[in-house]
Amino acid sequence: MNYCNLCGSTVRFEIPPGDNRPRHICNQCGEIHYLNPKIVAGCLPVHQDKVLLCKRAIEPRIGFWTLPAGFMENGESTRQGAARETLEEANARVSDLQLYTLTSIVPVSQVQMIYLAQLDDLNFSAGDETTDVQLFSEDEIPWDDLAFQTIRNALTLYFADRKKGIFPLHHVDLATPPGQYIDKP
Amino acid sequence: MNYCNLCGSTVRFEIPPGDNRPRHICNQCGEIHYLNPKIVAGCLPVHQDKVLLCKRAIEPRIGFWTLPAGFMENGESTRQGAARETLEEANARVSDLQLYTLTSIVPVSQVQMIYLAQLDDLNFSAGDETTDVQLFSEDEIPWDDLAFQTIRNALTLYFADRKKGIFPLHHVDLATPPGQYIDKP
Repeated sequence: MNYCNLCGSTVRFEIPPGDNRPRHICNQCGEIHYLNPKIVAGCLPVHQDKVLLCKRAIEPRIGFWTLPAGFMENGESTRQGAARETLEEANARVSDLQLYTLTSIVPVSQVQMIYLAQLDDLNFSAGDETTDVQLFSEDEIPWDDLAFQTIRNALTLYFADRKKGIFPLHHVDLATPPGQYIDKP
Repeated sequence: MNYCNLCGSTVRFEIPPGDNRPRHICNQCGEIHYLNPKIVAGCLPVHQDKVLLCKRAIEPRIGFWTLPAGFMENGESTRQGAARETLEEANARVSDLQLYTLTSIVPVSQVQMIYLAQLDDLNFSAGDETTDVQLFSEDEIPWDDLAFQTIRNALTLYFADRKKGIFPLHHVDLATPPGQYIDKP
């Protein structure tokens, strides 16, 4: 960040009075610009013994398989964001959304929320950011061609939980630096 | 947003190619500036039959009681953010953080995560944004002087759950507009 997006003046990077970390502060109007983590919301859509995956049409990880997910927008709930991304990427409608994995991806300041969801119908198809959408049973999952570690985690947890018949929230912190705020696992 | 924070030029507000909603786009460098919801992380710290509340020293709702919570920062996990806010606002250390309420506050594009947590010790005190910190039993809670609806919700749910002995995740969407993405409650 080099300029204030309110008045267009240059910014400096220093700790504001009463704060404890440096922020971008406008040299003209004094506005303090805060940078905060972004939420990625998505679904793990289930139909009978299969799950729905999307083949990515865009970078990063073009050509690899993923769950439908993307950045949450202003003016929606986390569940609405997860359902909207599923509709946009897979033209798929889902119900009964239940928070399943909550992952803080600390190095990139993202919080990923994946909802377990039931696919409403089989009229899905590739959206703009997707080249293919398919249902996969456990032994059909393209484990070597998954786009992200968080997707692999969610699928691994899901098939393990399905054998037990319970689907608790899985709370994961990735690459958490050592420090005083570490919670017990 | 009036100016690009990368190059300082003016921005226009229109739908970028391949997108489906208007964004702020730089007229000079073409950067697309996305606005996304912010996460508020905090704790409901418990000691025996009491919970810890903070009296706010700052607006909004100065002088009213709240749970220690605040905006999650880049470079931390949601649990670290919740514990950090508890340390900053109440000089209190907590353990065994468990996600308890997840509230999408749609009109202000915030997602609030309150963690149920055990207070490590009784050496708490008011932080910079707090004028008083106290432990309250259920019949001592200042219900008429709570700062926010989400805090009232979390406390109401906690005392009800405590009678049942189970503390499931409560997933709440506040002021969700009607629409196709509404999940079943």
